[in-house]
Amino acid sequence: MYIKNDRAEDVKITYIGGGSRGWAWNLMSDLAVEDQMSGTVTLYDIDIEAARNNVIIGERLQEAGGEKNFCYHACGNLREALQGADFVVISILPGTFEEMEYDVHYPEKYGIYQSVGDTAGPGGIFRALRTLPMYVEIANAIKEVSPDAWVINYTNPMGACVRMLYEVFPDIKAFGCCHEVFGTQELLAHLAETEYGVDKIDRREIEVNVQGLNHFTWIKEAAYKGKDLFPLYAKAADKYRDGLEYEEGRSWLNSYFANANCVKFDLFRRFGLIAAAGDRHLAEFCPGWYLKDPEVVKGYKFSLTPVSWRKENLKKLLEKSRKRVSGEEEVKIEPSGEEGVRQMKAIAGLGSYITNVNMPNRGQIRNIEDGVVVETNAVFSCNSVRPVVTGDMEKNIMELTRPHIYTQNAVVEACMKQSLKPAFKAFASEALVCLPIKEAEELFEGMVRGTSKYLGYYTE
Amino acid sequence: MYIKNDRAEDVKITYIGGGSRGWAWNLMSDLAVEDQMSGTVTLYDIDIEAARNNVIIGERLQEAGGEKNFCYHACGNLREALQGADFVVISILPGTFEEMEYDVHYPEKYGIYQSVGDTAGPGGIFRALRTLPMYVEIANAIKEVSPDAWVINYTNPMGACVRMLYEVFPDIKAFGCCHEVFGTQELLAHLAETEYGVDKIDRREIEVNVQGLNHFTWIKEAAYKGKDLFPLYAKAADKYRDGLEYEEGRSWLNSYFANANCVKFDLFRRFGLIAAAGDRHLAEFCPGWYLKDPEVVKGYKFSLTPVSWRKENLKKLLEKSRKRVSGEEEVKIEPSGEEGVRQMKAIAGLGSYITNVNMPNRGQIRNIEDGVVVETNAVFSCNSVRPVVTGDMEKNIMELTRPHIYTQNAVVEACMKQSLKPAFKAFASEALVCLPIKEAEELFEGMVRGTSKYLGYYTE
Amino acid sequence: MYIKNDRAEDVKITYIGGGSRGWAWNLMSDLAVEDQMSGTVTLYDIDIEAARNNVIIGERLQEAGGEKNFCYHACGNLREALQGADFVVISILPGTFEEMEYDVHYPEKYGIYQSVGDTAGPGGIFRALRTLPMYVEIANAIKEVSPDAWVINYTNPMGACVRMLYEVFPDIKAFGCCHEVFGTQELLAHLAETEYGVDKIDRREIEVNVQGLNHFTWIKEAAYKGKDLFPLYAKAADKYRDGLEYEEGRSWLNSYFANANCVKFDLFRRFGLIAAAGDRHLAEFCPGWYLKDPEVVKGYKFSLTPVSWRKENLKKLLEKSRKRVSGEEEVKIEPSGEEGVRQMKAIAGLGSYITNVNMPNRGQIRNIEDGVVVETNAVFSCNSVRPVVTGDMEKNIMELTRPHIYTQNAVVEACMKQSLKPAFKAFASEALVCLPIKEAEELFEGMVRGTSKYLGYYTE
Amino acid sequence: MYIKNDRAEDVKITYIGGGSRGWAWNLMSDLAVEDQMSGTVTLYDIDIEAARNNVIIGERLQEAGGEKNFCYHACGNLREALQGADFVVISILPGTFEEMEYDVHYPEKYGIYQSVGDTAGPGGIFRALRTLPMYVEIANAIKEVSPDAWVINYTNPMGACVRMLYEVFPDIKAFGCCHEVFGTQELLAHLAETEYGVDKIDRREIEVNVQGLNHFTWIKEAAYKGKDLFPLYAKAADKYRDGLEYEEGRSWLNSYFANANCVKFDLFRRFGLIAAAGDRHLAEFCPGWYLKDPEVVKGYKFSLTPVSWRKENLKKLLEKSRKRVSGEEEVKIEPSGEEGVRQMKAIAGLGSYITNVNMPNRGQIRNIEDGVVVETNAVFSCNSVRPVVTGDMEKNIMELTRPHIYTQNAVVEACMKQSLKPAFKAFASEALVCLPIKEAEELFEGMVRGTSKYLGYYTE
Repeated sequence: MYIKNDRAEDVKITYIGGGSRGWAWNLMSDLAVEDQMSGTVTLYDIDIEAARNNVIIGERLQEAGGEKNFCYHACGNLREALQGADFVVISILPGTFEEMEYDVHYPEKYGIYQSVGDTAGPGGIFRALRTLPMYVEIANAIKEVSPDAWVINYTNPMGACVRMLYEVFPDIKAFGCCHEVFGTQELLAHLAETEYGVDKIDRREIEVNVQGLNHFTWIKEAAYKGKDLFPLYAKAADKYRDGLEYEEGRSWLNSYFANANCVKFDLFRRFGLIAAAGDRHLAEFCPGWYLKDPEVVKGYKFSLTPVSWRKENLKKLLEKSRKRVSGEEEVKIEPSGEEGVRQMKAIAGLGSYITNVNMPNRGQIRNIEDGVVVETNAVFSCNSVRPVVTGDMEKNIMELTRPHIYTQNAVVEACMKQSLKPAFKAFASEALVCLPIKEAEELFEGMVRGTSKYLGYYTE
Repeated sequence: MYIKNDRAEDVKITYIGGGSRGWAWNLMSDLAVEDQMSGTVTLYDIDIEAARNNVIIGERLQEAGGEKNFCYHACGNLREALQGADFVVISILPGTFEEMEYDVHYPEKYGIYQSVGDTAGPGGIFRALRTLPMYVEIANAIKEVSPDAWVINYTNPMGACVRMLYEVFPDIKAFGCCHEVFGTQELLAHLAETEYGVDKIDRREIEVNVQGLNHFTWIKEAAYKGKDLFPLYAKAADKYRDGLEYEEGRSWLNSYFANANCVKFDLFRRFGLIAAAGDRHLAEFCPGWYLKDPEVVKGYKFSLTPVSWRKENLKKLLEKSRKRVSGEEEVKIEPSGEEGVRQMKAIAGLGSYITNVNMPNRGQIRNIEDGVVVETNAVFSCNSVRPVVTGDMEKNIMELTRPHIYTQNAVVEACMKQSLKPAFKAFASEALVCLPIKEAEELFEGMVRGTSKYLGYYTE
Repeated sequence: MYIKNDRAEDVKITYIGGGSRGWAWNLMSDLAVEDQMSGTVTLYDIDIEAARNNVIIGERLQEAGGEKNFCYHACGNLREALQGADFVVISILPGTFEEMEYDVHYPEKYGIYQSVGDTAGPGGIFRALRTLPMYVEIANAIKEVSPDAWVINYTNPMGACVRMLYEVFPDIKAFGCCHEVFGTQELLAHLAETEYGVDKIDRREIEVNVQGLNHFTWIKEAAYKGKDLFPLYAKAADKYRDGLEYEEGRSWLNSYFANANCVKFDLFRRFGLIAAAGDRHLAEFCPGWYLKDPEVVKGYKFSLTPVSWRKENLKKLLEKSRKRVSGEEEVKIEPSGEEGVRQMKAIAGLGSYITNVNMPNRGQIRNIEDGVVVETNAVFSCNSVRPVVTGDMEKNIMELTRPHIYTQNAVVEACMKQSLKPAFKAFASEALVCLPIKEAEELFEGMVRGTSKYLGYYTE
Repeated sequence: MYIKNDRAEDVKITYIGGGSRGWAWNLMSDLAVEDQMSGTVTLYDIDIEAARNNVIIGERLQEAGGEKNFCYHACGNLREALQGADFVVISILPGTFEEMEYDVHYPEKYGIYQSVGDTAGPGGIFRALRTLPMYVEIANAIKEVSPDAWVINYTNPMGACVRMLYEVFPDIKAFGCCHEVFGTQELLAHLAETEYGVDKIDRREIEVNVQGLNHFTWIKEAAYKGKDLFPLYAKAADKYRDGLEYEEGRSWLNSYFANANCVKFDLFRRFGLIAAAGDRHLAEFCPGWYLKDPEVVKGYKFSLTPVSWRKENLKKLLEKSRKRVSGEEEVKIEPSGEEGVRQMKAIAGLGSYITNVNMPNRGQIRNIEDGVVVETNAVFSCNSVRPVVTGDMEKNIMELTRPHIYTQNAVVEACMKQSLKPAFKAFASEALVCLPIKEAEELFEGMVRGTSKYLGYYTE
C-alpha cells in the first residue's frame, strides 16, 4: 500500500468470513464506487464455495461500479490469505443458527427472554465461548504472517472478540466497528429536522461523543451545527412515552429489527443520557426491566427476534447469492452506510477522520480499568487510531455496565484457560440469569450440551 | 453566537491583554481575512491606551481585509469586557521587562544560565508567581460573568496558567495554545521535501502525535502522506551532529530565536523520540546538559536571549504602533500561522479539527496524574475540545518531566495558599538550581526582592 | 487520659445510645473488671430515662467488679456529653422496631425475603436512610467539641455509618467494630479441636486475615499454631453439606440467630474462601441464591428473624432493666467477648494489638476505590489504628461485593444531598430487588411512607 | 518445622553468605540463647572455608549458650543448601572491597563524594549491578528447591535486591530487614528519657510508623507510652543545630559510623518529618545539600567512610575468626539487637509481631506504584508478613524519593535485560551525578572498567 496522487494504491484487504452474504456484500459494494483506493481483496472462508461465489459477485460489482479498482480472490488457507495484508476484516458466524437457537431460545425454558442473544445474556456468553477460540487462531496467524496489518472486527460479541485479539497479540492494530450508534444519530437527525424545519439532515452532521460498551454505548454530548441537541431529546423522551416511529413503512409491528425507541426514552428519563443502540440490544444489558416476559417486551414496543426468522432469511440470501452468481439477478450497488472504507482511507494517510470504535481502554474512559474493550470516538489518521478522552462514566450507568465488563473478562479468561468454569461464574451472576444456583447450573449444562460441537476447545 | 449558512455570526471575543503588540495583532490580522465568522472583539487591557490603539489598528485591518466582519471595542473593566463572551483570549505580560530581567539574569550570579526564562528554571517559577494571582482574578471573573465562554490561553508558563484557571473554576472550558510544535513540523516537512523531492510541504500535512508538557513536548509518531517520518529523522539526527539550518538568511548566529537543532538531535539520539519545541526551550527542562555555561550553549548553537534585546524590541514595537495608529504606517495583513481562529470555528460548530493543546490530564497521558496540564493532540468540535489518548509517557522522558510536574503543582499551590513557601521547595530542587540550600535561599530571596512589586498577593 | 504505671488513667468515654440494653451493658460489664483503666463514662441518649437507668446499672456493675475504676453520668445534651471525650462509642437504633418492621417485612409483599434486614437489601437501605442524618449531627458535634477523640461505631449498617462520619469530618479518628468474624473463628477453632484432639481452643488463637465489607467479610488465610486451617475447612465444607452445628443446646431450630453453616460452606465450595459472618448476613449479600423464598431458606438451615420477636425481646429487656435498677434482680458481670475495651487500651498506649475493623479504604484492599469503608485487620497502637495491606479482592467475590459498594456510595450521597433519589437508584438495582421498575418504585414509596417519621431530613 | 508446646522445632535455616563475620555471627549468637526454637543452620558460601570456620564458631556459641538447640553445617552448593529450608537468610558482599573502592572513591575524581556508597549514588548503582545477577541465581534456586521458604535479605542495596527476588519469582515470600530505623528510635528514646526523667527507655518502647525507601525512611508518628514524641523532636531539632551526641565515648570525631544528627535535624526543619536512618545514608539521597565537598560534610558532623578502613577492619575480623576457630579466643554471646530471630518465631506461628520491613508496594504507600520495594511497618504472624497501610508519602519527600525509585527500576531493568544501558540512564540523572553527559559517560565507563570482573553478566 502506498499513497500516490492522493490515492491509496495496491491496498491489500483480507476478509475473514469472506463468504458472508451480509457484511461482505456491503464492503464489496462500497469498494466498487470508491475512487481513492485500488488493490486486491482476498476472501477467506471455511466455506470456500461461499467465498468463490462472492468473488464472482465482487467482480460483478466492480463492473457495475465503473472503472475497476479492486480484484477479488478466494482463499481457503488463513495464513496464505493474510500474506501481505494491509487490512484484515473479520466477520464470522461462530457455528450455525442451530447453535444460535440454543443461545436464544433454550433459556426461555427458565423464563429468560432475549431479544437478540448475541452480546449479553446467556446467548452472548455462549456465542463468545464458540467465537473466541477462533479469534485465538486468527490473532496468532496475524501475529505471524501480517503483524503490521490493521484489523477491523465486525463479529459479535464485539468487546470480547476485540479483547481476545489483543490478549493473544498485544501489539495488534485492531479495532471493532459497529453501526448501532448511527441509528441514534438518525433519530437525533429526525428530531432536529422537525424542530428546525430542515428538510434532510445527514446523520453524519450530528456530532456525538459516545462512551460505553458496544451495544450499550451512551451519548454524553450531541450537537447539530452548533446547537446542543440534549434539550430536544429530553423533550422527545418526555413526549413520546408511547414511542416514536418515523420511518416510512417500517415499524416494530412489521419488522423484528425495528423499535419505537421506548427503551431508549425510558433510559433517558432514568439516567439523563442518550443510550446509543437499538432497543433490542439495550434491553439485554439491563436487569429484568424490559425483558421480564413477552408481554413486558410488547409493552416497550420491540420484538424478540426468533432464530427461526434468521434461518428463513438465510435461505432467501442463499437463493439470492445463487441468482447473482448465475447472473439470473443483477448485482446492485447500494451504499451500505458503513464506514469501513472511509476508515481504511484515513489509516492509509488520506486525511483524518473521527468516528466511534471499540478498542482496549487506555484512558479513554477514566473509571474503567485498562484493557477492557470499550466504545468511544477515535481519531483515524495515518497508520493510527487514537481514542479520545471521554472522562468518567456516569456512576449509575457504570453500575449497570460493570457486570458486563466482568462478563467480558470472564469469557476471555475462559478461553485463555480453555476452561468453562470462569464463564459459568459470570453466567450465574448475569443480570438476566436471576436463578438459584442449581437451576443456573442446569441451564448452563443444557446450553453446553446443545452447542458442544463448537466447544471442543475447552478441556474442562 | 449562532450558525447560519455555515457561518458563525455574532461571535463575541474578549481579548485579555488586548493592548499587546504581538498576539493581538496576529489575531486581528487573521480575523480580518476570515470569511466564516463575524462579530465583535473587546480588547481589555490594564493599559487602556494600548487597547484603544489596537482598536484603531484592528479597524484598519478590517478595512484592509475587505468586507468588514468584526468590530472592535476597548474596555478597561474586566467583568464588563467579559459580558456575553463566546471566546476569551488571554495573553498577558506579568509585570514588565524589569521583572523579566530578574527572572533571567539575576540567577547568572549563581552560575545559572537560562535561554528564555519564561517556563522552567528560576525564571519560569517567578514568572508563574507573578502571573497566577492575575489568573485567579480572571478565572473568578469568567466564572461569574461568562461561565460558558471558551477560554484560550497564550500566556507562559502555559501549564501553570491553564491549571490555575481550572483550580479556581473546575467547570471552565479552557485550553492553552502554543506554536512550538509547528516549528518541529516544519523541520520534518523540510526533511521530507529533501528526501521525497517534493517542492513545498505545508507543515499541516505532517501528521504528528504529541505528548508532554508545553515547551517540552515529544512527538511519538510522525507521518507524511502515509509515510513514517521517524527513519528520516533518525538519519538526520545522526548526520547533522553539527546542526542543521535551512531557513534562508536566518541562523542562530543572527537571531536570538533561531537554533541549529543540535539540542533536538541530541535528545533524539538519547531517547529515540522527537522533542517538539525550540532548542532554547528544551534546554531549560534538562539538568546541566545544555546550559552549563555560555560556552556549552554556543557549542549547541543556540542563544541565551538577553532581556535587553526584548526592551529594545519593545521600543520598536511601540513606535510601530504609534505610526499605525497615526496612519504614518499602513497596516498589513499577515497570516500569523497561528490556529486560534480555526479552533474557534470548530468550537462554534463549523467542522471538526485536530491540533495540539494544553489541558488538564484526564487520561490523555496514562502515567501522569489527573489534573496536571499536559500537551497532546485534541479533537475540536462543536462546543467541545477532547484530548486524544496518547498512552504512557516513555519512562526516561517521564523522569526528566516529573520535576517540572512538581513545579507546576508547587507554584499553583503557592498561589492557592498565597504563600511563597511551596514555590521555594520546588525552586530549591529545580533541575537548573543545583545549589546548596543556603545559596538557593539567597538566590530566591534576591529574586523576591527584585520582583516584589508584583508579589503583593503572597502573605508569607 | 494519660498513662501512669502502665495504666490509662482519667479515661473519658462518651457513649452515644447509652440507654441501650445490649451494647451498653456489655461495655459496662467489661469495664467493671478492667484493671488497667480508670475514668468516667457519660451515657448520652435521647431517651434520658434509659440512660439514667444504665447509670445505676453501671454503678452496680462497678460494685460487683470489686475496686471501682469508672464512674457513670447520664447526659441529655450531645455536645455537653462529648466534652473532653477520649473515646466516643456509638450504638444507636435508628427509629423503633415499627420502622424495622417495614424494613424487613414490607418487601415480603413483593416476594423479597430478608433474614436480618439491617445491612444489605431494602431493609439495609432504609435503615441507612434513617441513621445517616443522625451521623451527620454526631460527626459535626465531634468535629466541634472533641475532634481528637477516637470514635468506635457499633451501629448498622456499619459501612455507611462509618463512611458518613468521614464524609462530614475527614480528620475524624473513627472505626467500626463487629463481632461477626469471631463466630467464624469459633467454627475454625471447633474444627481444629476435633482434628488435632485439643481440648479447648480460644478463638483468639485462630489467626485470620480478613477482607471485605462488614457482614460480607472473607478470610483469605487462617492458621492455628503454625498450621494452615484451609485444608481442614475444605474438608468440612465438603463433608457437612447438610450443615454442621456444634454448640450444646443451640440450633437453628430453636434460635433465630443460630445457623448450620450451610451458606458458609456453600460459599466456600463456590469461591474457595471462608465467608466470615453468620449465614443470615451472608445470604443477604447474594442474589436470589439463599433467600428466594422461605422454603429455600429452610433448606439452607437458617431463619428469617421476625421483627415481632425483637419486639417481644425488647419487652423482656425493659423488664430486666427495671428489675436491675430497682434492685429486684442482681447485676451480673458477664465477659461480653467484645474487644472494645482492649482496643481502647491499645490506643491509649498500652501495647499493640491486632483485630479486624471497618475503616475507609486507603490501600488495604487494592482493587477497591479510596474511601469506601471496608473490613480488614488493623494494628492498634498508641493513638493509631492502621489497617494492614490485604492485596486484591478475588475477582468473583469482587463482583458480588461491588453492588454493595455502590449502595454504600448511594446512601451516603442521598444523605449528603438530602435527596432520596440516589438511594432509589441503588435500591432498584439491589441484588435482592429484582423487580420491574414500576414495582420497585411502588415498593420504595411504600417503605418511605411507612418510615416517614424518620425521613424528615430528605427534601426530595 | 512444626510447633509443639509453644516451641518451633526442626527449623531449617539456610544462610547464603554464611561465611560472613558480621551478620552471620550476629544470628548465630542470637540463636544460641533462643529457647523457643530448635533446628539446623546450613551455612552456604562461595568461600567454603569461611563457612566451615563459622560452623565451628556457631557450635562454640551453642555450647556457650547452654542447652544446644541448633546444629550447623557448611555447604558449597546452593541448591543443596536450600533443600528443605524454612528460612533463607541472604547477606552477601558482591565482589570485594577492591570493587567497593571503585564504587566510593573513583567518583571523587569528578567531585562526587559519597559517605557510604552502597545504596544510592554512583556506588549504589554499581553495587546493584554486581549484586543483582547473583540474586537472579538465588531466586531461581529458591523457586526450584524451596519455594515455600521465607527469605530474609540483609544485603544492600536493599530495595533492588528484594525487588529482584520478586521479579524472578513473583510468589517468593521475601522481605528485607534493616536496623537503621532502630538508631532513630534510640535517639527518640534518649530525648524521652531526658524530658520525662525516665532512667532507661528501650528503643522497642518507642512506637513508630515508618514510610519510605530503605535508608531513606521517614517516621510519620512516634509515641512513648501514650505520648506523642513529635513536639519533643521538634524542640531538639531547633535546639541542637550544632548537633547532638549522647553515647558515652562515641562521636563522629572518633567513629566513621557515628554522627551528630545534624542532617536528621536539618531534614526535620525542612520537611517536618523524622528521617529514620543514619546521617551518612540520608545525605546520599539528597542533591548536593550535604555532600558537596568534604568541608560541607564536616560542617554537618559526619564522615565519608573510606574503603581503606573497611579493608583494615576486614583483616582484624579475619584474625578474630582465626582465633575463635583455633580456640585462642573465646566466643562471646552478644545480643545483636537485630530482629531476625524474633521475626522467624512469629512466622513460625509463635505470636504476632510488628516491625519495619522492605517489601514490594501493594498499597502500603498509596502514591507509589505497585511493585517498588518500600519500607514500612508490617505485621508478622503465622506464615504471613503483611505491611500496614501508611497512606500517601508527603509530596516534597516524594519528590526527593522519586529519582531513587527510578534508579531501583533502572538497575532491575538492566539486570533483566543484561544490559548496562538502562543503568546508565539512571546514573546520568542521579542526584549526586550532576555532570554534563560526556563526563557522566566517562565516569560510568571508568567504573565499569574498574569493576568489570563482576559485570560479566551484562552483554551490552
